[in-house]
Parts: sequence; C-alpha cells; structure tokens
Amino acid sequence: MDIREILEGVKSGALTVEEAEAALKTAPFADLGYAKVDTHRRIRQGAAEVVYGAGKTAEQISGIVKTLAESGAESVLVTRLDRDKASSVEGLKYNPESKTAVFGKVPEIRSVGEILIVTAGTSDIPVAEEAAATCAFYGCEPKRIYDAGVAGIHRLLVHKDEIAAAKVIIAVAGMEGALASVLGGMADCPVIAVPTSVGYGASFGGLTALLAMMNSCSAGVSVVNIDNGFGAGFLACRILRK
Amino acid sequence: MDIREILEGVKSGALTVEEAEAALKTAPFADLGYAKVDTHRRIRQGAAEVVYGAGKTAEQISGIVKTLAESGAESVLVTRLDRDKASSVEGLKYNPESKTAVFGKVPEIRSVGEILIVTAGTSDIPVAEEAAATCAFYGCEPKRIYDAGVAGIHRLLVHKDEIAAAKVIIAVAGMEGALASVLGGMADCPVIAVPTSVGYGASFGGLTALLAMMNSCSAGVSVVNIDNGFGAGFLACRILRK
Amino acid sequence: MDIREILEGVKSGALTVEEAEAALKTAPFADLGYAKVDTHRRIRQGAAEVVYGAGKTAEQISGIVKTLAESGAESVLVTRLDRDKASSVEGLKYNPESKTAVFGKVPEIRSVGEILIVTAGTSDIPVAEEAAATCAFYGCEPKRIYDAGVAGIHRLLVHKDEIAAAKVIIAVAGMEGALASVLGGMADCPVIAVPTSVGYGASFGGLTALLAMMNSCSAGVSVVNIDNGFGAGFLACRILRK
Amino acid sequence: MDIREILEGVKSGALTVEEAEAALKTAPFADLGYAKVDTHRRIRQGAAEVVYGAGKTAEQISGIVKTLAESGAESVLVTRLDRDKASSVEGLKYNPESKTAVFGKVPEIRSVGEILIVTAGTSDIPVAEEAAATCAFYGCEPKRIYDAGVAGIHRLLVHKDEIAAAKVIIAVAGMEGALASVLGGMADCPVIAVPTSVGYGASFGGLTALLAMMNSCSAGVSVVNIDNGFGAGFLACRILRK
Amino acid sequence: MDIREILEGVKSGALTVEEAEAALKTAPFADLGYAKVDTHRRIRQGAAEVVYGAGKTAEQISGIVKTLAESGAESVLVTRLDRDKASSVEGLKYNPESKTAVFGKVPEIRSVGEILIVTAGTSDIPVAEEAAATCAFYGCEPKRIYDAGVAGIHRLLVHKDEIAAAKVIIAVAGMEGALASVLGGMADCPVIAVPTSVGYGASFGGLTALLAMMNSCSAGVSVVNIDNGFGAGFLACRILRK
Amino acid sequence: MDIREILEGVKSGALTVEEAEAALKTAPFADLGYAKVDTHRRIRQGAAEVVYGAGKTAEQISGIVKTLAESGAESVLVTRLDRDKASSVEGLKYNPESKTAVFGKVPEIRSVGEILIVTAGTSDIPVAEEAAATCAFYGCEPKRIYDAGVAGIHRLLVHKDEIAAAKVIIAVAGMEGALASVLGGMADCPVIAVPTSVGYGASFGGLTALLAMMNSCSAGVSVVNIDNGFGAGFLACRILRK
Amino acid sequence: MDIREILEGVKSGALTVEEAEAALKTAPFADLGYAKVDTHRRIRQGAAEVVYGAGKTAEQISGIVKTLAESGAESVLVTRLDRDKASSVEGLKYNPESKTAVFGKVPEIRSVGEILIVTAGTSDIPVAEEAAATCAFYGCEPKRIYDAGVAGIHRLLVHKDEIAAAKVIIAVAGMEGALASVLGGMADCPVIAVPTSVGYGASFGGLTALLAMMNSCSAGVSVVNIDNGFGAGFLACRILRK
Amino acid sequence: MDIREILEGVKSGALTVEEAEAALKTAPFADLGYAKVDTHRRIRQGAAEVVYGAGKTAEQISGIVKTLAESGAESVLVTRLDRDKASSVEGLKYNPESKTAVFGKVPEIRSVGEILIVTAGTSDIPVAEEAAATCAFYGCEPKRIYDAGVAGIHRLLVHKDEIAAAKVIIAVAGMEGALASVLGGMADCPVIAVPTSVGYGASFGGLTALLAMMNSCSAGVSVVNIDNGFGAGFLACRILRK
Repeated sequence: MDIREILEGVKSGALTVEEAEAALKTAPFADLGYAKVDTHRRIRQGAAEVVYGAGKTAEQISGIVKTLAESGAESVLVTRLDRDKASSVEGLKYNPESKTAVFGKVPEIRSVGEILIVTAGTSDIPVAEEAAATCAFYGCEPKRIYDAGVAGIHRLLVHKDEIAAAKVIIAVAGMEGALASVLGGMADCPVIAVPTSVGYGASFGGLTALLAMMNSCSAGVSVVNIDNGFGAGFLACRILRK
Repeated sequence: MDIREILEGVKSGALTVEEAEAALKTAPFADLGYAKVDTHRRIRQGAAEVVYGAGKTAEQISGIVKTLAESGAESVLVTRLDRDKASSVEGLKYNPESKTAVFGKVPEIRSVGEILIVTAGTSDIPVAEEAAATCAFYGCEPKRIYDAGVAGIHRLLVHKDEIAAAKVIIAVAGMEGALASVLGGMADCPVIAVPTSVGYGASFGGLTALLAMMNSCSAGVSVVNIDNGFGAGFLACRILRK
Repeated sequence: MDIREILEGVKSGALTVEEAEAALKTAPFADLGYAKVDTHRRIRQGAAEVVYGAGKTAEQISGIVKTLAESGAESVLVTRLDRDKASSVEGLKYNPESKTAVFGKVPEIRSVGEILIVTAGTSDIPVAEEAAATCAFYGCEPKRIYDAGVAGIHRLLVHKDEIAAAKVIIAVAGMEGALASVLGGMADCPVIAVPTSVGYGASFGGLTALLAMMNSCSAGVSVVNIDNGFGAGFLACRILRK
Repeated sequence: MDIREILEGVKSGALTVEEAEAALKTAPFADLGYAKVDTHRRIRQGAAEVVYGAGKTAEQISGIVKTLAESGAESVLVTRLDRDKASSVEGLKYNPESKTAVFGKVPEIRSVGEILIVTAGTSDIPVAEEAAATCAFYGCEPKRIYDAGVAGIHRLLVHKDEIAAAKVIIAVAGMEGALASVLGGMADCPVIAVPTSVGYGASFGGLTALLAMMNSCSAGVSVVNIDNGFGAGFLACRILRK
Repeated sequence: MDIREILEGVKSGALTVEEAEAALKTAPFADLGYAKVDTHRRIRQGAAEVVYGAGKTAEQISGIVKTLAESGAESVLVTRLDRDKASSVEGLKYNPESKTAVFGKVPEIRSVGEILIVTAGTSDIPVAEEAAATCAFYGCEPKRIYDAGVAGIHRLLVHKDEIAAAKVIIAVAGMEGALASVLGGMADCPVIAVPTSVGYGASFGGLTALLAMMNSCSAGVSVVNIDNGFGAGFLACRILRK
Repeated sequence: MDIREILEGVKSGALTVEEAEAALKTAPFADLGYAKVDTHRRIRQGAAEVVYGAGKTAEQISGIVKTLAESGAESVLVTRLDRDKASSVEGLKYNPESKTAVFGKVPEIRSVGEILIVTAGTSDIPVAEEAAATCAFYGCEPKRIYDAGVAGIHRLLVHKDEIAAAKVIIAVAGMEGALASVLGGMADCPVIAVPTSVGYGASFGGLTALLAMMNSCSAGVSVVNIDNGFGAGFLACRILRK
Repeated sequence: MDIREILEGVKSGALTVEEAEAALKTAPFADLGYAKVDTHRRIRQGAAEVVYGAGKTAEQISGIVKTLAESGAESVLVTRLDRDKASSVEGLKYNPESKTAVFGKVPEIRSVGEILIVTAGTSDIPVAEEAAATCAFYGCEPKRIYDAGVAGIHRLLVHKDEIAAAKVIIAVAGMEGALASVLGGMADCPVIAVPTSVGYGASFGGLTALLAMMNSCSAGVSVVNIDNGFGAGFLACRILRK
Repeated sequence: MDIREILEGVKSGALTVEEAEAALKTAPFADLGYAKVDTHRRIRQGAAEVVYGAGKTAEQISGIVKTLAESGAESVLVTRLDRDKASSVEGLKYNPESKTAVFGKVPEIRSVGEILIVTAGTSDIPVAEEAAATCAFYGCEPKRIYDAGVAGIHRLLVHKDEIAAAKVIIAVAGMEGALASVLGGMADCPVIAVPTSVGYGASFGGLTALLAMMNSCSAGVSVVNIDNGFGAGFLACRILRK
C-alpha cells in the first residue's frame, strides 16, 4: 500500500485512523535482532538481494538468506565468503574464484558482453571475479581481459575493438592504477575504476591507485572503494538498467 | 581512412607502400606547439570538444577553440574560465555561475530532467553548476535540488519522487559528504558523487568528503575528483549515451 | 581531610607542622608498583571505578580490582577483556558481547531508555555493547536500535519517535559514518559519535568515519576515539549527571 | 498539522485525499533558490536559528535572516562574519571578538556560569569567543578562563574550584591540545574539546591537536571540528537542555 | 694537491709537517658568509656550477656567481629565478620559459636528441623547460614532445619511433602521472619521472603523481621530487656521461 | 612563602586560617585579561622571560613585557617579531636576522662557543639565528657553521674539530634533513635537530625533514618542532645548565 | 614482420588484405589465461625475461617460465620467491639471500664492478641482494659495500675511491635514508636510491626514507619504490646499456 | 696513529709514502661481512658499545659482541632482544623487562637518581625499562615514576619535588602524549619525550603522541622516535656527560 491507497482506505472507512497511522509508519523489513533484513529493497532499489559475508558467522548468513527467501526473494548473492563458511550454510552454490555464493535460483543471463572487465595484472583477478559474479547475478555475463596492464601497452591495444564495443568497462588495477586512465581515453562508455590492494611499498594498500584513478586525466572515469568488485559490478548493471 | 581502406589502397596501387606507412602513422590531431588539439576525439570518444581553461592564457584558449572549430567542431565547451579571461576570447558565450563558456553553436537540448543534481549546501552550487553546464552542452538539461543536505533530512525526503524518477543522480557535497550515501540508498539509478572543497578544519580541502563517499554503505555510488563538476556531468551523459 | 581541616588541625595543635606538610602532600592513591590505583577518583570525578583490561595480565587486573574493592569501591568495571583472561580473575561477572566484566556488586539501574544507542550495521554491535555495558554500570539502561544505517534511510526513519524522545544518543558507525550526521539532524539532544574500524580499503581502520563525523553538517554532534564504546557510554552518563 | 491531524481531516472530510497527500509531502521550509530556509528547525531541534556566514554574500545573509524573521524567529545568530559584510546587512548587532552577529531580539540570559570556557593560550581566544557568543545566544552566559595552558600547570590549578563547579567545560587549545586531557582529569562534568589551528610546523593546522584530544586518556572528553567554537557552544547548551 | 703530492712534499722537505696538516684539512671552497661556494665541485662531481635561485636575493646570487667565475667556472646556471631578480644581476642570459639563466659562456651543444622530454599536458611545460635548459647547459639539446598524455593514447603512440630512439627519457606529468608507466613500457632506455604539482583536488600538489610514478608497473622508471626539472635534466646528462 | 612558611605562620598565629588558605591558593602570576603573565617562572623554571610575538598585537606585547619588567624581570626576549611590530613597542632592541628583540638589559655572555649551530643551507639561516639569539639571551654565545649540508660532505668534514669540541650541537636543516644524522655520528655531545620548512614538493613544509630526523640512525639526536629555533636554543642552554 | 614487411606483402600479393589486417593486429604474446606472457619483450625492451614471483602459485610460475623458454628465452629470472615455492618448480637455480631464481642458462657476466651497491645497515642486505641478483642476470657483477651508514661517516669515507670509480651506484637504506644524499654528494655518476622498510616507529614502513631520498639535496639521485631491489638493478643495467 | 703521527713518520722516514697513504685511509673497524663492527666508536663518540638486536640472528649477535670484546670493549649492550634469542648467545646477562642484555662486565653505577623516568600508564613501562637499562649501562641508575599520566594530575603533582630535583627527565607516553608538556612546564631541566605505540584507534601506532610532543607548548622538550627507549636513555647520559 502506498500513501494514496492508505488515504483512500481512511476516506472509505476501510482503515481506521489508527490503522492508517501504523501503516504509514510500518517499515518493510524484518528484524532478526542482529540485522534488519530489508525485504522490499528488491522493489525499491531495483536490485536483487545481496549479503556482505565478511564479519558474519555462518549462522547469521544462514538466518539472513532464509528470511530473504521466505519474503519472496528468488535469489540471494553472498559476497566475501570463504570456503569454510560457505560449506556450513545449506543451499549455497559457491564460486571459489570470486568468493561469492548464490542461494536459491541462479539468475538467468539476459545480456552477454556488454560489460567488459579488464585487469592490469594477474593478482587483480580475484577482485575482477567478484565484479563478474555480481554482474552475472544481475543477468549480465561480462567479457574479461586479464593481465593487460600499461607496462606493455600493446597487450591492451590489441583489444581496441572489444574496448570500443563495450557499454560499460570495469578497470581493475593496483600499483599506480594507470589502466583506468588509458581505458578512459580509448573508450566512449563509462569506465568504473576499482583500485586494488595489489602492490607493495608506497602502494599503501591501494591508496596510491585510488588517488591516481581519482585524478584520471580521462573524462568518463569514476572510482569505487579499494577491492570493491561487488560495487563495480552492481554499478555496471545499474548503468545498463539491468 | 581506416586500416582496411589503407590496405585496399595498397593492394589496388592507389597508395604506395610509403604513403600507406605514413597514413598508418598519421595521428588525427593538429599540433599548436603548446597543445595537441585532438580533432577526431568527437568521433572516437563520442564527445563534443572540451577545453580545460584553468592555467591557460586567453591566447592559448583562443587558439585551441579556433583550431577545433576549423576542424569541424560545431561547439566547444571551455571550463574553469574566469570572467576576465572569457572577455578576452572572441565568440564565447560565458556563464558566470558555472564559470564555463560555449564557443560556436549552443548545443540543443535533447533530454530534460533525466539527470538530477543535488547539493548539500549553498556553497556547493558552483560545482553543481559546472556539472549542469556540462550536461547541457551534451544536450541534457538537468533537474536541480540545491541545499538539501542530511542535517535536515526532511529537506531531502520531500524530493523522494524526483529522486526515484531520475536516471542518473549527481550528488555534490563537502564537509562529511553524507548526502551521497543517503541518495544512494533512496535511488535505483547510478549516483555520481562529487566531493567539494567546502568546509574547514578537518575537511582537509575535500579529502574527508572524498574518503567518506568512497566508503559509502550504499551500492551504486561512484566518486570523481574533488570539485570535478565537469567530470560528473560528462559521465552522467555518457551513462545516458548522450 | 581537606586543606581547611588540616590548617585547623595545625592551629589547634592537633597536627604538627610536619604532619600537616605530609598530609598536604599525600596523594589519595595506592601504589601497586605497576599501577597507581586511584582510590579517591569515585569522589573526585563522580565516577565509579573502571579498569582498562587490554594489555594487562590477569594478575595485574586481579590486583587492581582487589585494591579498589578494599579501598571501598562497591563495583568495578573492567573493559576490553577477553574471555580467557576473565576466567582467570576470581569474582568477575563477564559479558562476552561487550567484552566487559563487573567485579563486586552489579550497580542498580536508575534510568531506563534515556540513552539511545544506534548502530549503522551488524558489525558495529560489539562497540555499541561496550557502550551499553558502560551505561548500565553507571545505572542507565540504554535503548538499542541496531543495523539502521543510512543506506536504507527508512530503517532509521521508523524510529523517529524514539530518536525524538532520547536524552542522549550514541551513534556507532564505521565506513563513511554518515549515521551521525543524519541522527544529528533528527534529534534535539546531544549526539555522541563513535567511529568504528568496520570497513575495508579506504576506510583506513576508522579514520574516514572519524573525519566524516568530525565534519558533520549537523550541530550537536561530538566525536570520541575509534571503537571507544566505553568513552561514549561514560560521557552519556555524565551528560545525564548519573 | 501532524500525521494524525491530517488523517482525522481526511476521515471527517475536512481534507480531500489530494489535499492530505500534499500536506503530508509539504516540507516546513521556505525556498530562496540559493538556500532552503528551515523555518521549523526551532521547534524540531529545540534550537534558535543560526546562519553560517562564511562563503555567503551580504545579500544572501540578508535574505536568509529576513525569511527566518518573517517565519517567526525572534532572534537569528550569524557566525563567521567579518566586519565588512556585517556592516552591509541591516539590523545586525555585531560582535567583533567572536565575529558573530545577532539579528532581532538579543536573547535573554537564563543561566550564568554553568558553562566554563578555558583556553590554552591568547591566540585561542577568538575561537573561545565564538563559543561564548553561541552560548549567550541560547541564554547561557559562560565563565571564561583564558591563557591557562598546561605549560604552567599552576595557572590552571588555581582555578580548581571553578573547574569543579562547572556543569559543562569547553576546552579550547591548539598546538598539542593537552589542556583537554588535564581538564578531563580534573572535572566531573562533560568536557567538549575544540582543537584550534593555532600553532606552526607539525601542528598541521590543528590536526595534531584534534588527534591528541581524540586520544585523551581522560574519560568524559569528546571533540568537535578544528576552530568550531559554534559547535562547542551549541552542544554545551544542548547538554544543559537550554 | 692531492694526498700523495702532500705526502711527497713532506718527504722531500718541501712541506713542513704543519703545512701538510693544514693542506690536508683545507677544503676547496670559498666562504661568502651566507654561502660556502664550492669551487671544486666541477672537478669532483663532473658537473658545471649551478645556483638554486629561489629564496636567495639578487645580491646573494650575484655574489655567488662572481665567486664561481673568479675561481675558474666558465659557465654558471641559475635556476628558479624570476624575471625581476634576473634583471638585477649583471651578466645573466635569462630564459623566461624555464626561469633559468646562464652566467658566463653559454656551453656548446655536444649532443642532440639523445634526451627526450615528454609532458602529459600543456601545464607541465614550465617544469619540462627547466629540465631542457639544464640539459642544454650540460651540452645536450633534448627533443621535446609536449601535451601527449595518456587520455589520448594515440597522441603518444605516433611518437613510437622517437621514444624507441631515445637514450634517456624524462616524463613530466601531474594529475595521475600515468605517462611514466606507459613510456616505461614503450622504451628500452632509462625513464626519469618528474611528478608535477599540476592538478587539483586529490592531486595534493603532486603527491598523487609522485606515489603513482613510484609504483610504476614498468621497470626502468625512477622518480625525482615534485616539479624538479633541474634534477631530472642533471641526472639525464649524468646517465649520458655528459 | 612556601608551604612550610605558611604553616609556621598559622602555628604561630601570624596568619589566620583564612589567610593561609588564600596564600596556598594564590598563583604567582599577573592577569592582564588577554594573558596571564607568569612572573615567577624565572625562579621556578630557571629561565628568563620569553614572549612569543607571532599573533600578538604590538599593544599586547608592550603590555606583557612591561608587566614582566615591573615584576622584576631584568630582560625579556620577544621572538617571531616582524620589524613593523617591533618599531611600535618602546624599548625593544631589535635583531632583524633572528626576528627577535630584547627588552631591558641585554644579558651578558657567560659562555662562548660551547653551543655549535650548523645549517645545511643558506635558507636555513633565519631559523638558526632565532636559535642563536635565544642562546645569547641566556648567556651563551654560539659558534656558527652555515651552509654545510651533506651534498658536499667535505664542507662538513673540515669542521671536524669544532664538531668534536662542541658541548651541544643544534643541527638546522630542511629538505631531507640528513645533516642531523651525519652530525650525530661525528659528535659525542647531544645533537638537537631542528627541521625547517625549507624545500619544495615532497618536503611538505618540513614534515619530511622532521620524520627523517626522528628516524636518525645516530644515537644522541632528538628533535624539536619545524622551524623552532627558539626551542632548540632554549634546550641547548638548559642542557648546559645556563 | 614489421609494418613495412606486411605492406610489401600486400603489394606483392603474398598477403591478402585480411591476412595483413590480422597480422597488424596480432600481438606478440601468448595467453595462458591467468597471464599474458610477453614473448617479444626481450627484443622490444632490450631486457631478458623476469617473472615477479610474489602472489603467484608454483604452478603459475612454472607455466610462465616454460612458455617463455619455449618462445626462445634462454634465461628467465624469478624474483620475490620463497624457498618452498622455488623447490616446487622444476629447473630453477635458487638464491636464498636474494630470494631470486634463474630458469635456463645462467647469463654470463660481461661487466664487473661498474655498479656499486651500498647499504646503510645489515638489515638492508636482502633488498641489496635482490638488486645484485638482478644486475648479475643482466650480465653485470656489482661491487658491494654493506653496513656503511652515515651514523659512522668514516665507514663510508674509506670507500671514497670505489665510490668515485663506480658508473652507477645503488644506495639501499631504511630509517632516515640519509645514505643517498651523502653518496649523491660524493659520486659523479647516477645514484639510484632504494628506500627500505627497515626501521620502526615513525619510519612508517619506508615512507620516511622514501620522502627523504626524494628531497635529497644532492643532484643526480632518483628514487624507486620501497624495497624494490629488482627495479634498482634493472635500471642500473639499463643506464649501462647492458 | 693520528694524522700528525703519520706525517711525523713520513718525515722521519719511519713510514714510506705508500704506508702513510694506506694508514690515512685505514678505517678503525672490523668487517664481519654482514656488519662493519666499529671498534673505535667508544673513543670517538664517548659511548660504550651497543648492538641493536632486532632483525639480527643469534649467530650474528654472537659474532658482533665477540668482535667488540676482542677489540677491547669491556661491556656490550644488546637491545630489542627476545628471550629465545638471548638464551642462544653465550655470556649474556638478560633482563626480560627491558628486553636488553649485557655482555661482559656489567658497568658500575656512578650516578644515582639524576635521571628521572616517568610513564603515563602501565603499558608504557617496557619502553621506560629499555631507557632505564640503557642509562644503567652508561653508569646512571635512574629514578622511576610509573603510571602518573595527566588524567589524574594529582598523581603527578605529588612528585613535584622529585621532578624539580631531576637533572634530566625522560617522559614516556602513548595516546595523546600530554605528559611531556606537563612535565616540561614543571621542570627546569631537559625533558626527553618518548612517544609510545600504546593506544588504539586514532593513536595511529604512536604518531599522535609524536606529533603532540613535537608541538609541546612547554620549552625544553625534545622528542625521539616512537618506542625508542634506548635513544632516550643514551641521550640522557650524554646530557649528563656520563
């Protein structure tokens, strides 16, 4: 019931004032004590349900996914989930590369290759796979180009056509994060830059890549948090309105 | 001529090997000495031409916009331009609020209200206007909600429907930058967060807002550089494929 | 004996000059070698006794709480205490959620619900519970609203009345810490912001939340150290003069 | 009209559904274009009206204070206002020491000396005076102890009784900010620490004082932004429920 | 006289022990009071004389260059010299683009084009010119490619052959500094990266570029201080043993 | 009167209890309103009087020095004083190199050359002179070696004997601050390191020198604040017990 | 085939347009899925092959080195390799001091002693050995001077002649990194500074050394990333054109 | 042999020129390969020998202390030594509280109580004990006042006389480090401030204490590195010329 329905109900007498007041105040979520499970977010935000697994026990994850399923969610994505915890929650399909799992129905793929995920190095792949699993969860199977950093610019240039064809690009890089700027200059679609904590010394756990991406001389680039593959994948799908 | 055309020309004898080699190496830009004017970017990147005015003399700006115009650009946007410099360059239509100017034809508006620009305070308006002028340059007239920061959350909540209706939101805020998180939670479209240098003390020239936006607990939020209204407007239009 | 009593004693001859001089110099604490136990702080600061457990051995904790008890303290609170150490100190009532323990009499509750503790997420709960245990130790049973971060602003808005009714609010949040600003704008009582080390990447162990809270656009907000639940609870009770 | 009144109106037919819907959505503020003036905050937040003057033109300040006055505000405080701007706005009573002004009726003092403001040095006085003017605006005349930093601890100790008698203390200090810790240990009331940008070299514009105050070894201390005298004064009055 | 000559002198009786001791302790520099002018560095370090002009008065600069000339230096380079000061020192040949001047004989060019200086943007040119003037002072006329940043990677790729032909490359860039990494990957000679203070917001006066260059994923890149064109030019010539 | 004298007075009846209580609480300073002038510090701390001039008006400085003189101070040192302000205060002997002034009697020199002040460059001299003037004020005429940085290590090594003869060394350096480490390794007396704000780019206003000095691999080195010549001079004299 | 050969092939009919187009786009690397192995870099960059071992599994390392060997690489260097992983890859010659290994033929030494590696302390040796192993891999046997930090400057000065004789110096130091400045002042060849993470407290994992080296007052010094021995060795050989 | 002796030898013919040249270049240290043991530092720097144990193996420590002993050192101090390593080196007298050991003769105490070591809390004691053991090694038995932080200022004030009597004070504190400022104001001798890594959250491993101490409003305070008890003890003895 939205505001207008409630008001119509009051007018027609179908609702008492007290009932209407309560309805206006009732929030669409279930309270598990340790978490308020947001059972309407799917509708409100246009997103299927996602549970951030890090720092939650297997019991908590289990409780949350079941509550979501009972409230009508067909599929739930769990991220940042290590294999041990995953094996303790019943009904999860676990993907060790992306450290994600799906509970319930695996969403079907409705778009292939519109999202392009590029990594600078081999060590950036786990973050890229978290993004890829997120995209797939929202129905978009991404294309992947891995280990194509700017130290050997020709490794990137051979993919010129795929870069030109993409509708959204996710650029995943640690160290100096120059990949985002180069991709930003080659593409004519939005580039989502994901700094990673890959590197050592003055990479400061991804801060250098974050700052560099933030200062990209190429327009059309925006940045998400360090190692935030999920955020990049979610945003890419939102941009595609999937 | 693209690669294939060049190769066909060699095959047919229309081009000598030397001519073909030169053509393959010729870059599509004009060199003014102090700047390489990129006359093909419009096609390659799908963007009209933009000149970053800060740190350039009126003479340099004048030279660059003319070169662009001569190479076929119908409209050129100049950003970060103060009024004095603007008045020294012939043919500019200057907008003092956004500190931008258009040279040549003012692009026509092909989309109204799909982009929503929200600011936290009154002091964030100049950055928002730079974004708005950029959007307009690419044919998108944005909707504006100004001075709607989270210190009085009801000022934001009354705009619930406009927030829900937007296709892209640009959230402009200094200080603690909480606006981006709240908008990210209310909207189901991409939110581009622009930290501003508004604030004092521990706002550190926008760094606090930048870090806070980067850590937004709402998915669907990405961040551009401090005070980068142009970047946000450009990205918003790219997301809309305008 | 206060200064006047000592002086009266000298005047009357009840005290020699030497005795008076010594009395004026004697500090009201016991020296255990590794710690000066402050046996008069209860009177001087209006606070019951608290021992910070981190970095102290079970033996040291045991020695300190006994000294305090012998000097007249009815109850002693120990904070930052892990279960193992707690089980090695006789006479402690341990609370694993808040990692605190009470030695001696559990203080009685003299106020219920005047303090409201709100957390942004599930992972912020341990810090909130440290605050709650501290409040209870000083006789104030707080009200709790957990997992009500701004990413789903309606989860917070349904608690509008409780927020309006509070006499002091403790806002516990990591990541971007926006909860403090939103609560600051909704409440008309002091808001004590506790940044937590919850988050990853550019949250920098709570620094981002700390800086954001410090820059809150809402008046009436002040900030304590990262993860300092005890400090927030103590201050809340002081504000209530409990 | 609150929710219940609106609903009763619908039920009784006094309001149509459309009127009720509009009423539920109407926000209690006036929109001046460049600012949304919050005419109900006085009631909602228990605070009189305050305008942050920095970065606003004399015209904007004039427009805002008049709108507030017309909506029923008896007194408006303007902060961070330099003398030149102040002289361009009609009807302001300007205080050059605190750089604040009052528009309308000067609020009467209902409490004297419950708030104690202490500064470490002479250069911290302007920030302290901003706090003092804010306190006075909310009806609390503070007591002041200036230039009592810890480098000469006896300068502070002679005020032992005033410190013990205070209901709230505002500690204003730059450099290493140790004043807050020492006051926190001497007092049994809340201490609001205001780091100032006073200092040079490694004081980093107040960051060192901010971090030091945040790490105070004395419980009962919380911190506001660098140089934020207004915030400290406002919070002090809130704690006193003035 | 070197050590051996002194010792031979002692042996032969040409020098007394006292004279030898004094000679062994005599430093090869002249003391002007405010500066110790190092008249032997030309021989010891293989470098002609250079005076850092910033923060010195015209009188001091004049005194130093004359002392150097009198001690046998044919040419002296003065850097970071504004036009006003330059016009107050007799005998200087001033270059306004690089803000450098030569006193005495202009050194002849013995190498052309072995050093390649590349800038990312137009605003980086003054730093590049300081490097170029330094190179020329040591006899190396550099080749320049300006405004060839990675946002339009083709602008850089057309210079592939010049990059391949260089013996040392100086990469001058602000913002995210990605130019150094891309050049490092294209070249097979040493790349000296010079971060510049060009940029705004999160470029932090060149710190972001510095950190990014330091983390370059391309081997063969090393970094000098922000805006240190002189240092880069000096090092380039040293690498070429000029 | 010390505690014992007061108590004897009470015993003998020379003092009433009330008089004794007051005496015990009376602080030895004069309150000018804007400053508490500490008239006993000379005795308590063994130091003559010093006034930090920065941020004080000529009137305030004048008031403070007169109060000190009236309370018995023979000489007062004012630091960080520009020439304009100095000329507005009657009775000051101003030294433009150190930006210090003496009011009253110029203290006589009781020690010559025990303190050695070394600077790395010419630009560090003003800080060194502030230290030198402070030393002289406490009766110690320092020896100076200026512009002896480690870039030409022989410029330092020729002073080996003076370094070995010093009783305290003050090492003044900006940029990378290596001078302190080298002096620390050569000397067998305490080395007080003063980082200066001399440098550019990644020197960050002296922070790099400060951190480097703090990490000195030579034992016997300690550090004072950036540009704090006064602090270094004061400490040097304290070490010499002058 | 280079561009010209391809074009000649098209002209002569030896290549079809399609074959030529494909050839122009074919990149000279093998794709292993998890890594793009760059089989032509040896020619393009003048460098033998190097694999960064950290964060790669023994299987991945094995796969990469074999692919390189099959494509014609005679020798492959693996860096940052711990002994366990090394023992799981067949055919590696492991060096535990430098944590590097060579696969295939050990390159022969063509230059001895042109590169001089100096460390400040004993703990800097592993980084120095990584540099030394890299130099040796490219045919340059370096000279080593270890534990010669500036705290005992005479330990460095006795090596004056070796320092003067070097063609490139690698200065390896943690803590305050002063070694680079002192060497820079003594040598007339390029000095590559390698900050190390050796130190504690305010050394911040090498950041202090990095910043100090970046601010070196000696010209001719450039800096690579913290602990980046490989980068320094590689650059040294490039400078020598080995 | 010093310079003069060598020269006399040459003159008399007792030394050939070659022998003299070699002697002038011979450094007074033994080279163990992994360390240059400085066998003359005792004379040159007036200090007994100290070995920094962290990061050295038991074998290396054993080798170094023996070399020192053989070259005439009667006593060697080893710092930062854990119990396991200590038990593997023969002949060490180990002190677990300070984690230091003495090899050879335990130096006799020649001064008692001139150095006063004060800590803010219990957790700062290990750093204080490292300082104390260092003092004792150089013959100075310090006086200790532990757990006397400023949160309870009376705990410090009762020690007024001991503070006044000290010749050097070492102030050891983490968190906000205010102890140094308060001691600096109470004492008339040099205060060496040692920031410690004690604290959590915004204490940033001691950085906050370091910065605060650096900004101390009390003159006479200087700072050494975080947790550097050895440095403070060494400096204290140097100040006392022990």
